[in-house]
Amino acid sequence: MRFLVTGAAGLVGSHTVDRLLAEGHEVIGVDSYITGRREFLTGASANPRFNLIVGDLFDFTTVIEACEGVDAVFHLAANTDVRYGTDYPRRDLDQNVIVTWNILEAMRRRDIKTILFSSTAAIYGDSTLLPTPEDGPLAIQTSLQSASKLAAEAFISAYAQGYGIRALVFRFASVVGERCTHGHIFDFCRQLHAHPDRLQVLGDGAVRRSYIDVADCVDAMLLALHHPTPPVGIFNVGSLTSCALTESIGWITSALNIQPAIEFSGPGPAWVGSCPVIYLDCTKLHRLGWQPKLDPEAAVRRTVHYLAANPRLLEPSA
Amino acid sequence: MRFLVTGAAGLVGSHTVDRLLAEGHEVIGVDSYITGRREFLTGASANPRFNLIVGDLFDFTTVIEACEGVDAVFHLAANTDVRYGTDYPRRDLDQNVIVTWNILEAMRRRDIKTILFSSTAAIYGDSTLLPTPEDGPLAIQTSLQSASKLAAEAFISAYAQGYGIRALVFRFASVVGERCTHGHIFDFCRQLHAHPDRLQVLGDGAVRRSYIDVADCVDAMLLALHHPTPPVGIFNVGSLTSCALTESIGWITSALNIQPAIEFSGPGPAWVGSCPVIYLDCTKLHRLGWQPKLDPEAAVRRTVHYLAANPRLLEPSA
Repeated sequence: MRFLVTGAAGLVGSHTVDRLLAEGHEVIGVDSYITGRREFLTGASANPRFNLIVGDLFDFTTVIEACEGVDAVFHLAANTDVRYGTDYPRRDLDQNVIVTWNILEAMRRRDIKTILFSSTAAIYGDSTLLPTPEDGPLAIQTSLQSASKLAAEAFISAYAQGYGIRALVFRFASVVGERCTHGHIFDFCRQLHAHPDRLQVLGDGAVRRSYIDVADCVDAMLLALHHPTPPVGIFNVGSLTSCALTESIGWITSALNIQPAIEFSGPGPAWVGSCPVIYLDCTKLHRLGWQPKLDPEAAVRRTVHYLAANPRLLEPSA
Repeated sequence: MRFLVTGAAGLVGSHTVDRLLAEGHEVIGVDSYITGRREFLTGASANPRFNLIVGDLFDFTTVIEACEGVDAVFHLAANTDVRYGTDYPRRDLDQNVIVTWNILEAMRRRDIKTILFSSTAAIYGDSTLLPTPEDGPLAIQTSLQSASKLAAEAFISAYAQGYGIRALVFRFASVVGERCTHGHIFDFCRQLHAHPDRLQVLGDGAVRRSYIDVADCVDAMLLALHHPTPPVGIFNVGSLTSCALTESIGWITSALNIQPAIEFSGPGPAWVGSCPVIYLDCTKLHRLGWQPKLDPEAAVRRTVHYLAANPRLLEPSA
């Protein structure tokens, strides 16, 4: 098969590209290199079944050209900056909603019948139903990023129903692992690389997260793809447990064998829109036979070891 | 106070304008006259406290100019064509999502702190939790229109949380009443005006709807506006009961004193994305003291009498 992978040079994207190539498929990757990194595609680029388009998916012409001859689309490109969302109020609309519409419309015109989409557990907002199932209560959106992902999901569902497209939506918890270059685990590692004696934590740190290794995420997507699903299949992708932020800090400092002073910046959440608890009910995926190979601690430790072995990713200029 | 009302010449918009003027407020109306009608603003236009801007809200300059000196916004403009949504796949994104973002961004820049938004019960999709409460299960979106309304709601919530805006979201059931010019009740009246001997019903007619008079909708919005609410207040607005489509047909033919042959076009829903049942739990509004003054039958009958008295609205060229 011939797959289009958007966000091909990102964390989930580059692992997806590698896996699809390993399974013998043809892959067209698209990346703008705003967040993605060329070096994550070094292996893929040596493969004659891989082609990369460096471009902006906001440009519909780029999207329609990328869709030529494609059987299915992994739409994994997104604005990944959650924390500073309110500083750039148009960015999530453009990069997460309008870009997704571009993908869907190009698929419709090119008669491509399968999309896999990376959504986020943040759409559950301040849900108190824990673990949260896929049909959990419709939550008030607390960040532009989660709003834009919910909006993208909604258009994907409507296109699926209206035009006979199969849609697989994955609501990822906190994805970490090799090639991780954003998120709070990365930020902590970057800080401790710069000053191993102290760690600044935004807010009071009283949040819970569900860390999942990127390879487990790719497993989940491919399993669902090869399994019969309804026209719109929605899957939570998280770990079996949720852990306190302070636990993850303990794993990081233990992996690095350091004992920094932990400084919390103040009461309340890290920023407006930061979900207090992410803990997903992944029963639907478990029923398909999926289980995460790495638990949260192992997933975080792998990330820390990877970044320690690749310190250039932690440099301020990186 | 000075209010901006978008979609001012529409069904809900024109009644809102009239009510706000009657309460002594200043009103800026915006309408493109694509769906709205000049004649619905005849009374308002004679009032020196009313100003109308004929323009397209997709143009950000129009929006920011309309927001000058405004205290609160009733954002009621929308693409109202649900049935033919899949023929125009970009329209709901442009008119319902990007326009809403334009409103929000203009509010942010002009420091306007209150928005009231007309959403739809269609966002509950094929919900089997009936009557459906505001925090009902997150549903798979079945039409571009409902997808775009959910997307708009999501951005409104995110802006409210991120920039300290008060948001009141109203999920309307089937709004009917005087000045009704779209929806299936209107379509039935138009058909029976052209040929009183027969009525064609799309699909098998096996759907249930909750009709609500437009004046009750305006009551609900103003009540919530003048009541303390959380930063994001979401309210279902529907009748106390849900009724079969065939019941509403009976009320129409009874009101017109005719006995047409009813022809159902075939099995299944009227169109892809038509919700099977709309029946809303309006407890939140009831607790504020709101009750609909007209039950579904009275609301439908008033609509039929209005259209019979204003037959030019039923002409094919109208």
